[in-house]
Amino acid sequence: MTLTIGVDVGGTKVAGGVVDDTGRVLAQARRDTPAEDVGKTRDVIIEVVTELATGRPVGAVGIGAAGWIDATRSTVLFAPNLAWRDEPLRAYVSAAVGLPVIVENDANVAAWAEFRYGAARHAEDSMVMFTIGTGVGGGIVLGGELVRGAHGIAAELGHMLTVPDGHQCGCGRLGCIEQYASGNALVRFARAGARQEPQRAAALLGLAGGDAESITGPMVTAAAQGGDPVSCEAFAQIGRWLGTSLADMAQILDPQVLVVGGGVVEAGDLLLGPTRRSYADALAQRGRLPVAEVRPAELGNTAGVIGAADLARRF
Amino acid sequence: MTLTIGVDVGGTKVAGGVVDDTGRVLAQARRDTPAEDVGKTRDVIIEVVTELATGRPVGAVGIGAAGWIDATRSTVLFAPNLAWRDEPLRAYVSAAVGLPVIVENDANVAAWAEFRYGAARHAEDSMVMFTIGTGVGGGIVLGGELVRGAHGIAAELGHMLTVPDGHQCGCGRLGCIEQYASGNALVRFARAGARQEPQRAAALLGLAGGDAESITGPMVTAAAQGGDPVSCEAFAQIGRWLGTSLADMAQILDPQVLVVGGGVVEAGDLLLGPTRRSYADALAQRGRLPVAEVRPAELGNTAGVIGAADLARRF
Amino acid sequence: MTLTIGVDVGGTKVAGGVVDDTGRVLAQARRDTPAEDVGKTRDVIIEVVTELATGRPVGAVGIGAAGWIDATRSTVLFAPNLAWRDEPLRAYVSAAVGLPVIVENDANVAAWAEFRYGAARHAEDSMVMFTIGTGVGGGIVLGGELVRGAHGIAAELGHMLTVPDGHQCGCGRLGCIEQYASGNALVRFARAGARQEPQRAAALLGLAGGDAESITGPMVTAAAQGGDPVSCEAFAQIGRWLGTSLADMAQILDPQVLVVGGGVVEAGDLLLGPTRRSYADALAQRGRLPVAEVRPAELGNTAGVIGAADLARRF
Amino acid sequence: MTLTIGVDVGGTKVAGGVVDDTGRVLAQARRDTPAEDVGKTRDVIIEVVTELATGRPVGAVGIGAAGWIDATRSTVLFAPNLAWRDEPLRAYVSAAVGLPVIVENDANVAAWAEFRYGAARHAEDSMVMFTIGTGVGGGIVLGGELVRGAHGIAAELGHMLTVPDGHQCGCGRLGCIEQYASGNALVRFARAGARQEPQRAAALLGLAGGDAESITGPMVTAAAQGGDPVSCEAFAQIGRWLGTSLADMAQILDPQVLVVGGGVVEAGDLLLGPTRRSYADALAQRGRLPVAEVRPAELGNTAGVIGAADLARRF
Repeated sequence: MTLTIGVDVGGTKVAGGVVDDTGRVLAQARRDTPAEDVGKTRDVIIEVVTELATGRPVGAVGIGAAGWIDATRSTVLFAPNLAWRDEPLRAYVSAAVGLPVIVENDANVAAWAEFRYGAARHAEDSMVMFTIGTGVGGGIVLGGELVRGAHGIAAELGHMLTVPDGHQCGCGRLGCIEQYASGNALVRFARAGARQEPQRAAALLGLAGGDAESITGPMVTAAAQGGDPVSCEAFAQIGRWLGTSLADMAQILDPQVLVVGGGVVEAGDLLLGPTRRSYADALAQRGRLPVAEVRPAELGNTAGVIGAADLARRF
Repeated sequence: MTLTIGVDVGGTKVAGGVVDDTGRVLAQARRDTPAEDVGKTRDVIIEVVTELATGRPVGAVGIGAAGWIDATRSTVLFAPNLAWRDEPLRAYVSAAVGLPVIVENDANVAAWAEFRYGAARHAEDSMVMFTIGTGVGGGIVLGGELVRGAHGIAAELGHMLTVPDGHQCGCGRLGCIEQYASGNALVRFARAGARQEPQRAAALLGLAGGDAESITGPMVTAAAQGGDPVSCEAFAQIGRWLGTSLADMAQILDPQVLVVGGGVVEAGDLLLGPTRRSYADALAQRGRLPVAEVRPAELGNTAGVIGAADLARRF
Repeated sequence: MTLTIGVDVGGTKVAGGVVDDTGRVLAQARRDTPAEDVGKTRDVIIEVVTELATGRPVGAVGIGAAGWIDATRSTVLFAPNLAWRDEPLRAYVSAAVGLPVIVENDANVAAWAEFRYGAARHAEDSMVMFTIGTGVGGGIVLGGELVRGAHGIAAELGHMLTVPDGHQCGCGRLGCIEQYASGNALVRFARAGARQEPQRAAALLGLAGGDAESITGPMVTAAAQGGDPVSCEAFAQIGRWLGTSLADMAQILDPQVLVVGGGVVEAGDLLLGPTRRSYADALAQRGRLPVAEVRPAELGNTAGVIGAADLARRF
Repeated sequence: MTLTIGVDVGGTKVAGGVVDDTGRVLAQARRDTPAEDVGKTRDVIIEVVTELATGRPVGAVGIGAAGWIDATRSTVLFAPNLAWRDEPLRAYVSAAVGLPVIVENDANVAAWAEFRYGAARHAEDSMVMFTIGTGVGGGIVLGGELVRGAHGIAAELGHMLTVPDGHQCGCGRLGCIEQYASGNALVRFARAGARQEPQRAAALLGLAGGDAESITGPMVTAAAQGGDPVSCEAFAQIGRWLGTSLADMAQILDPQVLVVGGGVVEAGDLLLGPTRRSYADALAQRGRLPVAEVRPAELGNTAGVIGAADLARRF
């Protein structure tokens, strides 16, 4: 049995794991990300791989990172949270560790993990996944393969236009889905609700020391689970928009399964209830024709490691 | 050399052609569509195929029809302009003509023809096509194959949500792209402009006998080509929205080429100029990264016959 | 005691009444409107006035008509449902009946009646009224006087922009409130709902003989009152948008009372419940500051006669 | 001849002036605003009034302040940039200076000044003014009088809904005009443009030291006046939305004149050109009917002092 290593390079942590061909994680390693320093981030990746590979029959390495990766899965063209610009990561790490390496977008990696071993493991052909973090990422599998695009930048689902002339996105446009269905949007909606109706948001404001501007995503989740109405409404708002985008993906790709991942999924039906209602409403005209089911992701934070390792195996 | 037959079943005409393996049409046949009568429409298809197959080494038949086709390409689930509901067209025609038959959605068929022999023939891997008729249809090719979806209903691009709470669509939703970038939308915009500013629309109104409600799509095209400002603005409006949806497809699938087809393409830069500007604006944040070029379809009305025949060959 | 006559000129009926200075209607007369014939419509008005004035001490005549009236309340500039264009109605009728005459927009007239004797009679200073018919009309009272505008065309509330690039309005723009909160919008929403979900709309479709395109406003009201969910949702949709526009009027004019009139008011809380919720949501940031209450009109169809007569009294 | 004093209480400066009955400013005084201290701000107002009143025949004092003022013009209910909450400013200042005092909202005061002595001085009856500062304020004059509303809070034009589900406003709602046509919106649009297309924004970025986040409103004005395309587009964007809201005010109130004030007016036709085009487009269906002209404010920063003094005179 050959093992592979998956490395998930985030803005704060570099997490690595040794994964077998059933998706099981046999060993793990973790370091802080020296995000501002291109060279050090590379070296930390190499450290993690070297530690994990020592004494194990490892055949390849997969690296997942937030950013645009080129179509050959070699170079990080641009990584918003790291210092990389046109960084030839594959060649550098491969030379250092003496193993084949592939580099892949983090949301693609997570989608692949869910397709193979998680929420979409029963689908043999197709799935689309939205990963809801501070922003919105996406991954698409069709014909059993990850859709990477002609230039390596497919599945940028966070920048689908949702509200023409809507809320300004960091990308410059007005109204991207990232401004309506992300963790940042959840917090924005919750803060606005708490400022408008402090009494109804008493539980949420209690967690935030009484200051609406101090509200964070985990506070909104905790308050919503305890029944705080303003927090529940914030989840319903992002769910409503997410359902609309999921319906668009059903119209465009008609996949077997639609998956929603990211930290917000911990809120369960507080998010998925409104999401599914909005999704069904948007597809009502399809009548009795079957459409993909919407499922929560199952692998949580380990999806990055498992997916990167599994993609490396399929070199 | 084996030949195949393609049949394009429209609401008014059934057009068939014998096509060789270079996409050349060797012979054609055409009948009126008895659209209200299920049985007669089937019989006309069989007549056309029989006429064309007689005395030629034909290997298979492809049929393109507007509607939802099941995933096995056998049954027309629903055809808005014909009387078919769960019509087992493949079995019926195949039994009658003694040849293998496949049935495919008309916009998928046109996209396939453009991918193989038309505007996207230089792309070996991927393209997305919007077909602008009275409504908006779509076709997607990825990995050199048509994307049909898990239930046979992928590429329903006309019902992507474009303006939340926008113009009511025939499908029941508010704001589908079909209400903003179709031939019907072109006419709606032109009529509104002519009612508001009859002097500026004098040329267009001249073609319509002075009555805004009599304006048709071909009149808008003719007037726009002659410089009528209201007609040009109607093209600019649908181009603006079309560019936005093309940009969404670039974000989602990152294809090699994007193609715009349908009768409105005859307007040339009157449509494609505003489309490309809106497309570029929407993708400005991608900076220097390459994106798909937007091209007009090249095969016109014969795309249906060529595409259906070519798909039949690839059984 | 001086009496005055009010005449309400609609697209199908010309209704007149003799009204005393407490708003009581002492006598009534009614004729069909010969809508397509300018001269005959004038003559019918004169017939009605002559009949009512005979044997009564009548001091003046007020005429309410759908359309743009000039600032001197003399000329109908444009009436969409009648044949009048720059019609000097005041001079013509006054000469014929030998009484002072004023002409006023029908929605202004209804608003004045509600301000003096109806839902806003307790307000001494200000009110804004939306009249929901097939379209949306408006009337504004400030400082105890009707706001007529510098050119006689104030209170055209139906053409406030509500959804940028939204549903196309008969006026040529996209997204006027008339396309979202009118009787026509109610029917459009109900038909779309019935097409999408015929089972849930069974009661409504029953009234319409099974054909969604045959659904009318009164059918939607009747079905909603019987609990038909699709009909209730259609009322909720127009109520949601109406509440938004009422909130805009509170922000702009801060009146004492807001009134909703027209046939849809018969639906009671089916309309006013969603309207008030949307209104309150839109003004949540005003916190504890007082805002106008939203009330249903009370005078029904007689508002036109009463308001026109009362305005004539105040010559 | 009696003189009156106007005081304009801003977040950074308290400016006072002695004004005669032709709107001429005879003397001025100015202090920094101790914005965080309720008592000190009151004392600075009293200092300014006392200094100006000494040795002059002053009859009354008018105070303009950003915030909600009660209907009797006595109490500041809420002032976003000052520490006042339910502050009885009129009683306090009147007792201290021994003169009649009125308190009025700052945008109302500016509108009054323009109506009496500025851009709308030829209008005897009605005008509506949008004041574009960091936010958007409004003032309405009808029948020659300021419209204050039933609760003193009319003319809050900045919170008219413009884009449903649009950019989040500080007030908690999504899509207020303040998020599309304010100075803050101008800067937001310009920064987004500069991040997306740094080459086209080279002149603007030069003023900001190369950092898009350092762009300010005056920089956008300066760059636009020098032809910087991204800065010109930012003005065109806010002008487009402003024109839409001006058209809504023409539909609602049909005033004699519409005035646009605030610092952005210095940009002249860069702002007013797009504003007037959007305004005309939105009213195209009114055809040949006259509508209010859109004019820039003329009194600049002194409008606050002049308007407050003039309102005090009309006690």
